[in-house]
Amino acid sequence: MFAVVKKWRDIGAEIAPVEVPELKKDEVIVKVKAASICGTDVEIWNWNEWAQGRLKKIPLIIGHELAGEVVELGEDVAALQEGDMVSAETHIVDGTCYQCRTDRMHVCQNMEILGVDRDGVFAEYVALPERNAWKNDPKLDPAIASLQEPLGNAVQSVLPKDHIEDIAGKNVAVLGCGPIGLMTIAVLNTLGAAKVFATAGGRNEVRMELARKMGADTVLNAREEGEDVVKTIRDATDGNGVDVALEMSGAASAVRQAFEILTSGGRVSLLGILERPLEFDVNTAVIFRAATVYGIHGRRMFQTWYQVKGLLAQPDFRNKIASIITHRLPIKDVAEGMELINSKQAGKVLLEPRWE
Amino acid sequence: MFAVVKKWRDIGAEIAPVEVPELKKDEVIVKVKAASICGTDVEIWNWNEWAQGRLKKIPLIIGHELAGEVVELGEDVAALQEGDMVSAETHIVDGTCYQCRTDRMHVCQNMEILGVDRDGVFAEYVALPERNAWKNDPKLDPAIASLQEPLGNAVQSVLPKDHIEDIAGKNVAVLGCGPIGLMTIAVLNTLGAAKVFATAGGRNEVRMELARKMGADTVLNAREEGEDVVKTIRDATDGNGVDVALEMSGAASAVRQAFEILTSGGRVSLLGILERPLEFDVNTAVIFRAATVYGIHGRRMFQTWYQVKGLLAQPDFRNKIASIITHRLPIKDVAEGMELINSKQAGKVLLEPRWE
Amino acid sequence: MFAVVKKWRDIGAEIAPVEVPELKKDEVIVKVKAASICGTDVEIWNWNEWAQGRLKKIPLIIGHELAGEVVELGEDVAALQEGDMVSAETHIVDGTCYQCRTDRMHVCQNMEILGVDRDGVFAEYVALPERNAWKNDPKLDPAIASLQEPLGNAVQSVLPKDHIEDIAGKNVAVLGCGPIGLMTIAVLNTLGAAKVFATAGGRNEVRMELARKMGADTVLNAREEGEDVVKTIRDATDGNGVDVALEMSGAASAVRQAFEILTSGGRVSLLGILERPLEFDVNTAVIFRAATVYGIHGRRMFQTWYQVKGLLAQPDFRNKIASIITHRLPIKDVAEGMELINSKQAGKVLLEPRWE
Amino acid sequence: MFAVVKKWRDIGAEIAPVEVPELKKDEVIVKVKAASICGTDVEIWNWNEWAQGRLKKIPLIIGHELAGEVVELGEDVAALQEGDMVSAETHIVDGTCYQCRTDRMHVCQNMEILGVDRDGVFAEYVALPERNAWKNDPKLDPAIASLQEPLGNAVQSVLPKDHIEDIAGKNVAVLGCGPIGLMTIAVLNTLGAAKVFATAGGRNEVRMELARKMGADTVLNAREEGEDVVKTIRDATDGNGVDVALEMSGAASAVRQAFEILTSGGRVSLLGILERPLEFDVNTAVIFRAATVYGIHGRRMFQTWYQVKGLLAQPDFRNKIASIITHRLPIKDVAEGMELINSKQAGKVLLEPRWE
Repeated sequence: MFAVVKKWRDIGAEIAPVEVPELKKDEVIVKVKAASICGTDVEIWNWNEWAQGRLKKIPLIIGHELAGEVVELGEDVAALQEGDMVSAETHIVDGTCYQCRTDRMHVCQNMEILGVDRDGVFAEYVALPERNAWKNDPKLDPAIASLQEPLGNAVQSVLPKDHIEDIAGKNVAVLGCGPIGLMTIAVLNTLGAAKVFATAGGRNEVRMELARKMGADTVLNAREEGEDVVKTIRDATDGNGVDVALEMSGAASAVRQAFEILTSGGRVSLLGILERPLEFDVNTAVIFRAATVYGIHGRRMFQTWYQVKGLLAQPDFRNKIASIITHRLPIKDVAEGMELINSKQAGKVLLEPRWE
Repeated sequence: MFAVVKKWRDIGAEIAPVEVPELKKDEVIVKVKAASICGTDVEIWNWNEWAQGRLKKIPLIIGHELAGEVVELGEDVAALQEGDMVSAETHIVDGTCYQCRTDRMHVCQNMEILGVDRDGVFAEYVALPERNAWKNDPKLDPAIASLQEPLGNAVQSVLPKDHIEDIAGKNVAVLGCGPIGLMTIAVLNTLGAAKVFATAGGRNEVRMELARKMGADTVLNAREEGEDVVKTIRDATDGNGVDVALEMSGAASAVRQAFEILTSGGRVSLLGILERPLEFDVNTAVIFRAATVYGIHGRRMFQTWYQVKGLLAQPDFRNKIASIITHRLPIKDVAEGMELINSKQAGKVLLEPRWE
Repeated sequence: MFAVVKKWRDIGAEIAPVEVPELKKDEVIVKVKAASICGTDVEIWNWNEWAQGRLKKIPLIIGHELAGEVVELGEDVAALQEGDMVSAETHIVDGTCYQCRTDRMHVCQNMEILGVDRDGVFAEYVALPERNAWKNDPKLDPAIASLQEPLGNAVQSVLPKDHIEDIAGKNVAVLGCGPIGLMTIAVLNTLGAAKVFATAGGRNEVRMELARKMGADTVLNAREEGEDVVKTIRDATDGNGVDVALEMSGAASAVRQAFEILTSGGRVSLLGILERPLEFDVNTAVIFRAATVYGIHGRRMFQTWYQVKGLLAQPDFRNKIASIITHRLPIKDVAEGMELINSKQAGKVLLEPRWE
Repeated sequence: MFAVVKKWRDIGAEIAPVEVPELKKDEVIVKVKAASICGTDVEIWNWNEWAQGRLKKIPLIIGHELAGEVVELGEDVAALQEGDMVSAETHIVDGTCYQCRTDRMHVCQNMEILGVDRDGVFAEYVALPERNAWKNDPKLDPAIASLQEPLGNAVQSVLPKDHIEDIAGKNVAVLGCGPIGLMTIAVLNTLGAAKVFATAGGRNEVRMELARKMGADTVLNAREEGEDVVKTIRDATDGNGVDVALEMSGAASAVRQAFEILTSGGRVSLLGILERPLEFDVNTAVIFRAATVYGIHGRRMFQTWYQVKGLLAQPDFRNKIASIITHRLPIKDVAEGMELINSKQAGKVLLEPRWE
């Protein structure tokens, strides 16, 4: 079969013929119907510092967001059948560590990630552990089904725990309008937020327009308006600031703003990965403000998948999510997809299984 | 001034001239612009068993849901001004008991209720403690502003605590489609519920139609369909049942159904007052199901008011709530309003300050 | 090997020679070092109405609380080794249903229970799924290790969810002083409760004395003192009532008292199984009091096991729990153990592996 | 009367005769029976950078922790009587801002602090708003009653919200053994923590000895052992790290350690004020670890006071807290008390009302 393979420890990857994955007894073989490009895939493609330090297995088939069809079942597989349409929870956990046994398997101590630690989904076929296969409604468009995994991150950012202050009638800010930021705006809008503020890192009309489409009440250009982001949001919230701030950009300035716009006793979710250690006034940002801060990593398994399923059952929400897909390319043009994201011209790029 | 006064311990009340309320130093005088009829007002009007046991003060001006304008300020009043448009949190609390000092003032040990323990709002003017006056956006339609108090009960039913399982993507049932039940459906729909099931007590096309308008996916006639309510809801939820069941009817059969349709580990809110003690299989309903049950009484002060404000900032939600008002009458026709509710022909009945 | 076998659908069970259990690939064989008698075992022994309706598999080896040594490993077992000392989480779950995938596997839709649905631990050897084997500190006394499973129920009653009002400095009542009630008192005492009230069902000096030993500040004889339980507890709490009431008896009168002694906005856990449907004033008990009610069934897997492990690391707590074991018998005298519990002369009865 | 007065914007303060405070209608006059020195008092005495920027009112009577007797009542005071023994919630809030109306009055937008913004308690008499006076059991030793305010901070650090992961059976670390750190250890021990680790900033045998006395299982010298704090704690927790880390020192190295010793999905409370902005690896510390971080400022009003009351009802806990008081001085020797704290020779220093 064909696959997008990282063959060397350098920039790029190659479309190459490889062996069809071997079937293990507790896994299934999935024929890929749609795959989408995540920021992590771009980092691996670009071979940035993080990727250089993180990747152990080379050659590696990259990619992890997908929708596909189960075509072969391992002998121990019980809950799936051939023909089932599935997506993948991409975090493969051990099930026995302290975190797994205390309802935090999304931070398992021995986690393997699809397309990072083992062969991924930018391929004709992929092997998936049964418990990582999430069965989709067969009527769900594979393009949208593939987006459920990052949508889970959006939900996790908004609702990091089961018992959390609700969004209903609250003012919320999303800092950063990459694909997960955009999805987060749609989630907030569907959860009854009063006002949703979004900031985007300047020069990016595509994303600002998408942010409005997702339901943001106010979209601010973080670069041009600079410090006035704080004043604008304070003014629009009776001086109180937002109840919830969601940092999705990884920019140091945005992390600081997340606290500056926060009402005392409010909460912040941090999802965006920073490039370097942050110089940070902990007293003012966190302590005097009695803020709560949630580090967001992965998605709760599988609460977030049920939440995503429930949200996607609503046509308005489903249509919003679909509109984040700005480009659909045959997978043979994966390099073009990477370039579109690197140049920030895209929302989400979807790859379709055409290899030649 | 004129007011609707309960003058005797019997059915009905009388429109009568009374003294304008006296101004205390920590209170304000409010000119009533709109008032709405609550089920409690009807019970007092009808002089049912509950009312006979509960009312101490006769004569009493009845009514508690309102929007009005502040026309006079007590000497200690600091946060309000003449001309402010306000609604009323109708629970007047002592501020010093165990409940008040531990963020549960909505169940204060020494609570007085407007229109029940002290003179209410079916009058030209009403005296309100400053801290019970909720300042409205002056652009908010007084008819909708008057509905904020019961809307707070709807929000309280859905989100009884700050830290509660979220509605996002969950399946939910509302049992009972009186005004608070209808408002609750609108709240759930705005909070991203996956599927909302509603049951109405039969023979009531007005309310079933309103339930659909509020956003219920399925509206069931509890009386005709009888036991099949459970089967219908189970079938529509992959056999799991609903995550959240909200009992708003006070019917014993509905309380039982609330548990029968609940997924194990789910939660139930009980708001509807029952006519008599319930014969109840606690083992099956609550224990084996590991259910959580919330008794709903009043509204958290003032978290629910902020939530209601935030929800009403959304035009779709505001329009839904407006459509629950099926009748607008001059207050001189209050008896007609009571009759409309007693005969279950109405959603919410709004009274306008025309006395002659 | 020998085992205590329920051979017929009638009272009692028989010590009989049976086959050693077969080893499956994801299970281990455990040599039983200690086993303790649970109320459920007594119900099966007594062949009461619940047992008659619940048991499908006859003949059945009964018993489920144990400590033992792993003596044989199935081929897929990874996290255990021969010689490991283990206890058993007795609920065998499917891992794939809605409850299992949303952190509520203790209410799995397809649960099998050790000693109820499959052969149990009153035997020389028992087969356990790997994931149900909880590895003990090899220095932990097997007698105490065997009590961890019901101790988990005690912890679950006190802390039914991860995010729950704390016990620290709160007033708490435990209604019912059977073994789990007694363990619950010890847990509360160790968690910083201000005052712990306990009620016992009369005529039972053994249990009342144990309740005091566990750390109850006040132990009331529910039968003699009758209605004064409520007055006594109200008086001792500045009139506020308790913050938390834990019903462990299954007596209808105790369920009612649990609410009558509760402060408004407080919480109740219901663990005791009732003999018949309850006639219950839902309005006063739950709604007007804005109470939260938790149905307690099983133990969260495996959060409660970690909590129990942490508590047992404290010598004071461990000693208290040890003192609940009032009788240690060779397992050949299991009938005597059942009789001791039926006549309410015992705290907890421990069975030691002497068969002849 | 006499008082300790900050008369100039420089180091120190002066014992001077001043006017007895004026009685307002919603306040009471309290005769001081005991007062204790807080780190904030020392900062004001030392006139450090924070104090220079923070203090507006000079001259100012300093001090805020006290126990005293109500000797005069304002005309509106209802819930107190002459002769009542009281302590003070030192945060005087407006009661009407967004935070006050949403159960977060401890971060009121318009807060005044006793001994910082208005005259404090190092005086013969002090005026207190009625709602800030906490009525003590008359039998409670004034020395201990005075410590309730910082004890509330300890409780707030451990349980920052009503709904929080419990301490029962969890491993916890306290970084910093100043008076609040010490109190926190006692609280954790009383709440059923499995293992409590404490770190102290070197050279301070008094505090390390007190930490052991409070119930710490392991006390580490942060300065000498340096990086091994992390290894030691990881090794003692099966490699998992602690579930909860409480930063009470304000040292940058301790903030970093709080995360390095934390299990994934664990929580951190930050109470210690840092001297300067922190250079901080947010990715590793917070995001990849899915940590929750709570900024701790003040005490929830008045939940923490009830918790403190409940904990102090336990003799063991009360005795531990009493032993933190290492010095009792007549208030005329306040300068000596400040020196004892500056030289880190003291636990808590208590001032008794002897002026000459």
